[in-house]
Amino acid sequence: MKRIKIKELLATAPTGQPVAVHGWVRSFRNSQFISINDGSTLQNLQAVVELNALGEDTLKRITTGACISVSGDLVASLGKGQAVEVKVKSLEILGDCDPEAYPLQLKNRPSLEYLREIAHLRSRTNTFSAVMRVRHAMAFAVHKFFNDRGFYYIHTPVITGSDAEGAGAMFRVTTLDPAKPPLDDKGHIDYKEDFFGRETNLTVSGQLEGETYALALGEIYTFGPTFRAENSNTTRHLAEFWMIEPEMAFYDIQDNMQLAQDFLQFLTRYALDHCAEDLEFLNKRALEEDQAKPQEQRSELTLIDRLKFVAENDFQRLSYTEAIDILRNSNPNKKKKFQFLIDEWGTDLQSEHERYLVEKHFKKPVILYNYPANIKSFYMRQNEDGKTVAAMDVLFPGIGEIIGGSQREERYDRLVKRVNELGLPEKDLWWYLELRKYGSAPHSGFGLGFERLILFVTGMTNIRDVIPFPRYPGNAEF
Amino acid sequence: MKRIKIKELLATAPTGQPVAVHGWVRSFRNSQFISINDGSTLQNLQAVVELNALGEDTLKRITTGACISVSGDLVASLGKGQAVEVKVKSLEILGDCDPEAYPLQLKNRPSLEYLREIAHLRSRTNTFSAVMRVRHAMAFAVHKFFNDRGFYYIHTPVITGSDAEGAGAMFRVTTLDPAKPPLDDKGHIDYKEDFFGRETNLTVSGQLEGETYALALGEIYTFGPTFRAENSNTTRHLAEFWMIEPEMAFYDIQDNMQLAQDFLQFLTRYALDHCAEDLEFLNKRALEEDQAKPQEQRSELTLIDRLKFVAENDFQRLSYTEAIDILRNSNPNKKKKFQFLIDEWGTDLQSEHERYLVEKHFKKPVILYNYPANIKSFYMRQNEDGKTVAAMDVLFPGIGEIIGGSQREERYDRLVKRVNELGLPEKDLWWYLELRKYGSAPHSGFGLGFERLILFVTGMTNIRDVIPFPRYPGNAEF
Repeated sequence: MKRIKIKELLATAPTGQPVAVHGWVRSFRNSQFISINDGSTLQNLQAVVELNALGEDTLKRITTGACISVSGDLVASLGKGQAVEVKVKSLEILGDCDPEAYPLQLKNRPSLEYLREIAHLRSRTNTFSAVMRVRHAMAFAVHKFFNDRGFYYIHTPVITGSDAEGAGAMFRVTTLDPAKPPLDDKGHIDYKEDFFGRETNLTVSGQLEGETYALALGEIYTFGPTFRAENSNTTRHLAEFWMIEPEMAFYDIQDNMQLAQDFLQFLTRYALDHCAEDLEFLNKRALEEDQAKPQEQRSELTLIDRLKFVAENDFQRLSYTEAIDILRNSNPNKKKKFQFLIDEWGTDLQSEHERYLVEKHFKKPVILYNYPANIKSFYMRQNEDGKTVAAMDVLFPGIGEIIGGSQREERYDRLVKRVNELGLPEKDLWWYLELRKYGSAPHSGFGLGFERLILFVTGMTNIRDVIPFPRYPGNAEF
Repeated sequence: MKRIKIKELLATAPTGQPVAVHGWVRSFRNSQFISINDGSTLQNLQAVVELNALGEDTLKRITTGACISVSGDLVASLGKGQAVEVKVKSLEILGDCDPEAYPLQLKNRPSLEYLREIAHLRSRTNTFSAVMRVRHAMAFAVHKFFNDRGFYYIHTPVITGSDAEGAGAMFRVTTLDPAKPPLDDKGHIDYKEDFFGRETNLTVSGQLEGETYALALGEIYTFGPTFRAENSNTTRHLAEFWMIEPEMAFYDIQDNMQLAQDFLQFLTRYALDHCAEDLEFLNKRALEEDQAKPQEQRSELTLIDRLKFVAENDFQRLSYTEAIDILRNSNPNKKKKFQFLIDEWGTDLQSEHERYLVEKHFKKPVILYNYPANIKSFYMRQNEDGKTVAAMDVLFPGIGEIIGGSQREERYDRLVKRVNELGLPEKDLWWYLELRKYGSAPHSGFGLGFERLILFVTGMTNIRDVIPFPRYPGNAEF
């Protein structure tokens, strides 16, 4: 008989029809009730074994974690907690699971820290299976959003000879013998002998390469892995993470902000519509976690409230300069409650300031734009005031900055001047600068860290728990 | 006025309505007819300038490659080659393009080799824009196929501490000072000091990590970059390429073959349905390329014929042993036309044999299965005959192997034995082996090299021309 997935089975009207289900045992009560999960949904299927129908030997092998195949009739369930159940006619053990050795037992609820050490098994827990199903849904929604709008997905390179963006420390990629690297005349490492004939690194962003395609195909996006070799042991940083970077010809900073809002609202709405079951579970989980905290650290909004907050509220747009005015005159600033007091124009904002604007002042998502040039990147478009650039950051409740972007400087002379002011290697940027020589166009783009998004949508608090196999200083297991 | 994309505009009924279009000049004839392309489609828009309506200065700046903004009325075109055109009312130069310096001129059709050197501009040609639009459509189709079937997309790690699969030479990822690496007591490089506290490499496959998720969520797939540090300067190999690897619990080798067929047929059908315009162009391009070859090297089928051939024919399944019998008794073998003659059971098949089976003998796509164990990987399921494994390869016309996969060995003892026979590091595989200890299940999967697929679908002949910025020995520019 063809196997049916539990997700599909639970949506089927029970008429006593025969079904076959494969999955893993979550629990086995009273030698009679087996909870089976196959990963297709958070819900378990209840399989009911008639008393004395199975031999003692088989019963002993129905342990938490064991993989079984069950055939029987699908009937309405009289018990609480499920609408249907399967009356078992035959049961086969596909894979045993030694209850003494198996680390995922119901009785001792493992910590998130411990689960990171067994990342090859943690996806069998409710929490991680829910997170990973939501992660899948969000990845698909990203592609759907852009495809529906006529954007083209571009795979920008992971290994790059360009390190000009300066977004962070980089990992070197090499095939040179580390013990005996070839040296040139001057005794330096001779990268001409390396695989690519030059020093190469792992990319920190696909933006610059993405721009080359925006100026040919119009609207494009990247969605790929990016890397930072920074020694950050925080709950917000990974050495390897996935980033989404749309880049659009003929968009100014206002178009860019509108796209960012449409995108984030589409994603949160998609999650609410397509992941209701998993989100309810994660909502409850986050509530429990929250309630273990002291009152003043608890969230005002639940996870699902936060998602609705984003999906349903227009984002407030205001300039950096306006934001500084608000913050300077705010109560926490006057009463010196901010850790970093806002005094003068030109300082970078901290998470506490961003959250004040979103959560206290406007009570809606905020997009700040026109930042001081000297706290932003070289490629951002210079405004006529001579001191700001057309940068924008989208700020979210709980999380602060979730998107950063800008209109790009499309004027060759201005861009070259800025490159030289900052001492960037003009010769490595030849191809990027050429885009401004040959049919340059106004264009814009932004970046969304995918794991930041997943943190926001799942309510998890450590970024190491929203990616299958996290990479961070000291860890590249699996 | 809001800009309209040319793709959308060309599908609009012309009633003299005002429109605004932005794009790049492809040609400018008789000081009157401008062909504009904005990347949304292969088609150019014809914009018609009234004689003497624009100043001499502006006219001079309408050069191939320049970026312009045009407003005017959309009317039916009297000229040949287009249904509609825009009567220009105003025209603005957004970005000049010096015709003396710009490398993409109509008159001197640049070679594919030269275009690789200007990969930041080549996406502005018809060929590369068509290839990249098809590439996008195929990437979206991959996600759609799996999402519709309830598979979950898993991002397996790019940086890995595991090098057990042995699929090929690897790139080292490091932050150690190459000139002065730290040494341990014995004078060896001390990788404990490296970023991850161990030696790390770029992944060659996400399969092993993917299996951990298949045995939790049921059906998953990966779609990410993979790497080979092999010194291969061929038209078929890249150092960095994208791979799709589905992995499914409860699938045996037959289920696996069915999924591979469904998948490839869905993709080719999707291309035919969604990329008709670009495929027609590429079809013509491939024909012209083909006609420049000597008769005996020309393809029997056109590009579009090949796509239909795959979409419409059931794939022929046969065992390796049956294939060897057919090949041994084939005319090219008897007449010694094969470069590698088929003599005995156990030898690996070459591309010439694969193509004979597909193109001459069966005249349909072929799936070979049950290969000799000693020419296949350690993780493939051992058959009861003691000499073959449940491996399968899908063979395509023109291209040979496009998919390779297998049922995985789910039996702990057999897998450990094989690992030790082959001298693989059992201790590095602890987590992979544990999957067979805790609720193991029959499962299968396969890998599709995305660029191989794009070669097949676009009819391009060099793999460096179907990825935006190709990486190969000696090249990591951009």
